[in-house]
Amino acid sequence: MKLETANPVRSFKARGTETVMARLAESTVAISAVCASAGNLGLAMAYSRQRRGISVTVVAGAGANPVKLNRIRALGATVRIVGGDIEDARHLARQMADIEGAFLVEDSENLDTCEGAGTIGIELVEGAGRLDVVLVALGGGAMATGVGYVFKRLAPEVEIVCVQPRGAPAMALSWRAKSVVETDRIETIADGVAGRRPIPAVLDDLLAVADHVPLVEEQSIIAGMRMLYRHAGLVVEPSAALGVAAILEDRSRYRGKRVVTIICGGNVVPADFERWVFKQGDG
Amino acid sequence: MKLETANPVRSFKARGTETVMARLAESTVAISAVCASAGNLGLAMAYSRQRRGISVTVVAGAGANPVKLNRIRALGATVRIVGGDIEDARHLARQMADIEGAFLVEDSENLDTCEGAGTIGIELVEGAGRLDVVLVALGGGAMATGVGYVFKRLAPEVEIVCVQPRGAPAMALSWRAKSVVETDRIETIADGVAGRRPIPAVLDDLLAVADHVPLVEEQSIIAGMRMLYRHAGLVVEPSAALGVAAILEDRSRYRGKRVVTIICGGNVVPADFERWVFKQGDG
Repeated sequence: MKLETANPVRSFKARGTETVMARLAESTVAISAVCASAGNLGLAMAYSRQRRGISVTVVAGAGANPVKLNRIRALGATVRIVGGDIEDARHLARQMADIEGAFLVEDSENLDTCEGAGTIGIELVEGAGRLDVVLVALGGGAMATGVGYVFKRLAPEVEIVCVQPRGAPAMALSWRAKSVVETDRIETIADGVAGRRPIPAVLDDLLAVADHVPLVEEQSIIAGMRMLYRHAGLVVEPSAALGVAAILEDRSRYRGKRVVTIICGGNVVPADFERWVFKQGDG
Repeated sequence: MKLETANPVRSFKARGTETVMARLAESTVAISAVCASAGNLGLAMAYSRQRRGISVTVVAGAGANPVKLNRIRALGATVRIVGGDIEDARHLARQMADIEGAFLVEDSENLDTCEGAGTIGIELVEGAGRLDVVLVALGGGAMATGVGYVFKRLAPEVEIVCVQPRGAPAMALSWRAKSVVETDRIETIADGVAGRRPIPAVLDDLLAVADHVPLVEEQSIIAGMRMLYRHAGLVVEPSAALGVAAILEDRSRYRGKRVVTIICGGNVVPADFERWVFKQGDG
């Protein structure tokens, strides 16, 4: 397990926002930035703005995780809630950037976010010993393409498996079709990877680095969260359990192999965690 | 927070047992070792024996944590259960060493265990920036004296606070009296720090490095576990929450200071964790 939850923003996203904000602070282009976020990107943006005096607005959909939104506000960023889901938030963020001149951070499309996430791959190549498979959660694609790119350049023998929930399968379906497939609903508890409209350039990158892109069931995600709690003492958000879920659904594929999965975030509402992990069966 | 739970034995103890076992493997004195343990030392001994071909016996009291004992067995060590508590287990371990010629690892008395724990202090001095206070769980004293020694040598301006449960206060009472005080009962959920008979040499070391030795209530330990779960996503054993408990009981002492607490272990029976953290009030 590559643990990305034991840091101030409790997810891997500050790797990307530190890259974005460091470059933004060096330029004289903008002193404000805007992003659409289900929470982790916004939280990381708010964290990375602090020492740099950059004002940040985070646009979130109506169903966004309130624990994450409160932390974003506590770090001094502005939160705007829009009706609809993350795609509607992305639309408003683009408008705000156009109208107000704020720097738009589009997760996955902005290569700095992928480059930052790619440092996870560098740490794995340098520190994890021989690996056969790396399991990466797949949402918009920043982590999958960033980590995948590093392995394809530095350790191309390692299989890159990008895992998406069956309830938010747009990027996985796009990868299989080799062209963008949009979907019309998000039906997953894994808010960190829930999107409906893949970015074409990110799909191109994903096609170049992903070897296998399984879709997993919600019950497998919950079973993965339960295993991480019981056997590793980790409270993780659903996105962070996608790798374990993929193993549970296809055990023979991974048997006897050296597998790493990236535990990418731990921002979960405690009441949700307890309901999912303790009050359901099949554990 | 200095996190010591995200490793194969889920506690800091392998720092000590790696030191012990590496030296044992270099010598030709013994090919077997024995220790008394409530669990974490035994688990770390079992882990550190593996690559070195050293057989290990762990002697535990009747009330020892079954999650830890099962992991010890899974790592190929032998477990012996004795009637009574950890002090009875220590007595049998010493007998076995005398009779069978096994190398006796006495936590805290064997300086390698303190030296290993001291590496936590080195990492803090090198990587944590300016600190005012370090809070260390106090049981037999290996971690407290090891970490304390490092700070007294390398950063003597940092206050070393060693925290013990009021229900297992022998070492704290001894520190206050400046001579060994034995107690006759253990009444704490913090099994990792529960002892009744302090080792005189360890007390001498503790007197040289500890600046403050508070005793904390069980309810504060549980409140600390709950905070670590809710705000940091960590499932920790009671011993790991002693530092947070000390802060909760004496907030003004720490206000405005840069405080680090060592989250020293995460081996807790899930049912116990859930009962303590979710089913009690005052949270």
